[in-house]
Amino acid sequence: MTKVSTLKVPARILMGPGPSDVAPAVLQAMANPLLGHLDPAFLEIMNEIMDQLREVFGTKNQLTMPMSGTGSAGMETAFVNVINPGDVAVVGVNGVFGQRMADVAQRCGAVVKTVEAAWGEAIDPNRIEEVLRSEDKVKLVAVVHAETSTGVMQPLEDISRLAHQYGALFLVDAVTSLGGIPVEVDRFGIDICYSGTQKCISAPPGLAPVTFSQRALDALDGLSDKVQSWYLDLSMIKGYWGQERSYHHTAPISMNYALREALRLILEEGLESTYRRHQILGGALQNGLEAMGLTMHVKEDIRLPQLTVVRIPGGVEDAAVRSRLLLEYGIEIGGGLGPLKGDVWRVGLMGHACRPKNVMTFLTALESILADMGVDVEAGAAGSAARQRIAAL
Amino acid sequence: MTKVSTLKVPARILMGPGPSDVAPAVLQAMANPLLGHLDPAFLEIMNEIMDQLREVFGTKNQLTMPMSGTGSAGMETAFVNVINPGDVAVVGVNGVFGQRMADVAQRCGAVVKTVEAAWGEAIDPNRIEEVLRSEDKVKLVAVVHAETSTGVMQPLEDISRLAHQYGALFLVDAVTSLGGIPVEVDRFGIDICYSGTQKCISAPPGLAPVTFSQRALDALDGLSDKVQSWYLDLSMIKGYWGQERSYHHTAPISMNYALREALRLILEEGLESTYRRHQILGGALQNGLEAMGLTMHVKEDIRLPQLTVVRIPGGVEDAAVRSRLLLEYGIEIGGGLGPLKGDVWRVGLMGHACRPKNVMTFLTALESILADMGVDVEAGAAGSAARQRIAAL
Repeated sequence: MTKVSTLKVPARILMGPGPSDVAPAVLQAMANPLLGHLDPAFLEIMNEIMDQLREVFGTKNQLTMPMSGTGSAGMETAFVNVINPGDVAVVGVNGVFGQRMADVAQRCGAVVKTVEAAWGEAIDPNRIEEVLRSEDKVKLVAVVHAETSTGVMQPLEDISRLAHQYGALFLVDAVTSLGGIPVEVDRFGIDICYSGTQKCISAPPGLAPVTFSQRALDALDGLSDKVQSWYLDLSMIKGYWGQERSYHHTAPISMNYALREALRLILEEGLESTYRRHQILGGALQNGLEAMGLTMHVKEDIRLPQLTVVRIPGGVEDAAVRSRLLLEYGIEIGGGLGPLKGDVWRVGLMGHACRPKNVMTFLTALESILADMGVDVEAGAAGSAARQRIAAL
Repeated sequence: MTKVSTLKVPARILMGPGPSDVAPAVLQAMANPLLGHLDPAFLEIMNEIMDQLREVFGTKNQLTMPMSGTGSAGMETAFVNVINPGDVAVVGVNGVFGQRMADVAQRCGAVVKTVEAAWGEAIDPNRIEEVLRSEDKVKLVAVVHAETSTGVMQPLEDISRLAHQYGALFLVDAVTSLGGIPVEVDRFGIDICYSGTQKCISAPPGLAPVTFSQRALDALDGLSDKVQSWYLDLSMIKGYWGQERSYHHTAPISMNYALREALRLILEEGLESTYRRHQILGGALQNGLEAMGLTMHVKEDIRLPQLTVVRIPGGVEDAAVRSRLLLEYGIEIGGGLGPLKGDVWRVGLMGHACRPKNVMTFLTALESILADMGVDVEAGAAGSAARQRIAAL
């Protein structure tokens, strides 16, 4: 076989849809020696992580902890633990992750009723209500809080109220929202919520924080059969994270070190300051791009600050720009997915990557590359517009 | 909430059933900055890991890569991608992990036929053949190569031959064997094999290396419905690890850095030397324990070197000894599971933890604690017996 040399990792600025940059302290946390998954010192770390996650999720839910997989494992956890075959699941689909929820729910045996919106629009609560009214009994209503494929922020209050009014659980994908904009599980009446570590939490990918309300746990207790996924079966996993400490699977020790440190940094900064930083710097980036003559894909009132989806100017080749950003500037941004492929870029400012210098570096780099490609951009306009907004920080 | 301070991890010697100690270079690999999961530099790392895993698994299988979860996710992957509802699965059960395979297979809709053996014995191939003869069509035969709950090494050749003779796939749990004793997927005719990173590979827990033969992939192609787990669906995941590089979920970047480095260290030492080290030091530990007057739970010809299961001497309290080992010596060993709880200790010498000084330190510590508790142990006999064997290294 080819001889594999010592690992050398090129330096990047991760401004795509995730993973995001991770603070040096978080990387360093992973370099700590391992503990056993039942070591008293690790059990204490687990308790701390649960407390930290409750704070960031805005919940008192006892069952609040990281699943041992990435955000998509969190999604599957959310459905597989409450769906009986034949249960009706109403799923909002306005991007890749709504589609994925529908797919996952169907694999769990749900009868899926999708409520669609254009990729770049929010789901209309009235359309949700139409379905709720037309069905005998709906088990859950699911929406994506921050659609990573479109940059849309979904308002949650009205849909939460409707779900509960019709006796359904309210399930929210908070993969890209948690730590970037308020999720507020208890205040928004969310019964099941999951996230990932590699977006605004700024830990490496590998864990999926989830939280389940008592109503959601009642649904788990009421399942007619065993949870179809052994690995994601909360009826057993809650015993490991709870008082019993019963062995289920070996927790990813180092990833939990990283999560604990990432959450510590967020809570040290304060949730309000963190949200404000994302709000202001996301706005600065978006002002800068508009000053460069580019168009936002999402209208302002439902636009995420932590993930900006911007239309690619006519005649500009998507891959060439992203490749030059990566190779010349070390900056990663994302391309469009599905129907938006080739039409948009997805620029993240998440967690540790959400910093003024990244906004300025990216705008400068993009301006230079576009000018090089013959796009008519006013030199310095983007930076100047962004700087103005950054001043509010 | 309680203020969470900077992470402080006590130093341990991990001699339980896993996780095992991790080399400093592996911990340091995780402290490298993140790359995006589609970054060309990360795609190269993925290729290297696949090559390394093929070497360690002893296979040419194209589909050989780490799943984004712990060993139990590997187990679920092994079944969920090939079982149609109603398929017959013959599962050898002689410990916790055989039981778990039966549970997982049943959740995938399999009709499970267990072939049992006492906890401490190997599965008898003749008993497997009886079932194969009595069933119309068997989809797969599954056994655990290294039973982590009992310390038994299951011989594979005869069962492999029988499985193929009756047209069934041969599935092997290599969680505790891979990197410690030869697995040799191609030579043993294994169709589906999975492992974990936290045993003899000596990377942190969080990834599950799997390998699927062409026959296993044909079974995946022949499934009547979508794989019931979206997260573990190889029909999609193979596109990300293959030439297409199609996005499925965000790979756990840092864990893959660690795995690459851990495999690099193993291949640098050489597989034969690694196996020899486990064989000699496992034997040294076992000789030492016997010299101390203790009894092995498993007879020598099917006894694992990397995980020694030893009977607890009469009158000695299990938890008190393990607690003193941990608190006074920083040594973690495991207790018994299920019917063996309170009757045995499980002492691992896996990967980076498999070193002469750990053998000697553990024997000295245990001798001292047992003597303290009034057990009649001949001072120094254990160390002397172990040293004699270690000299062969």
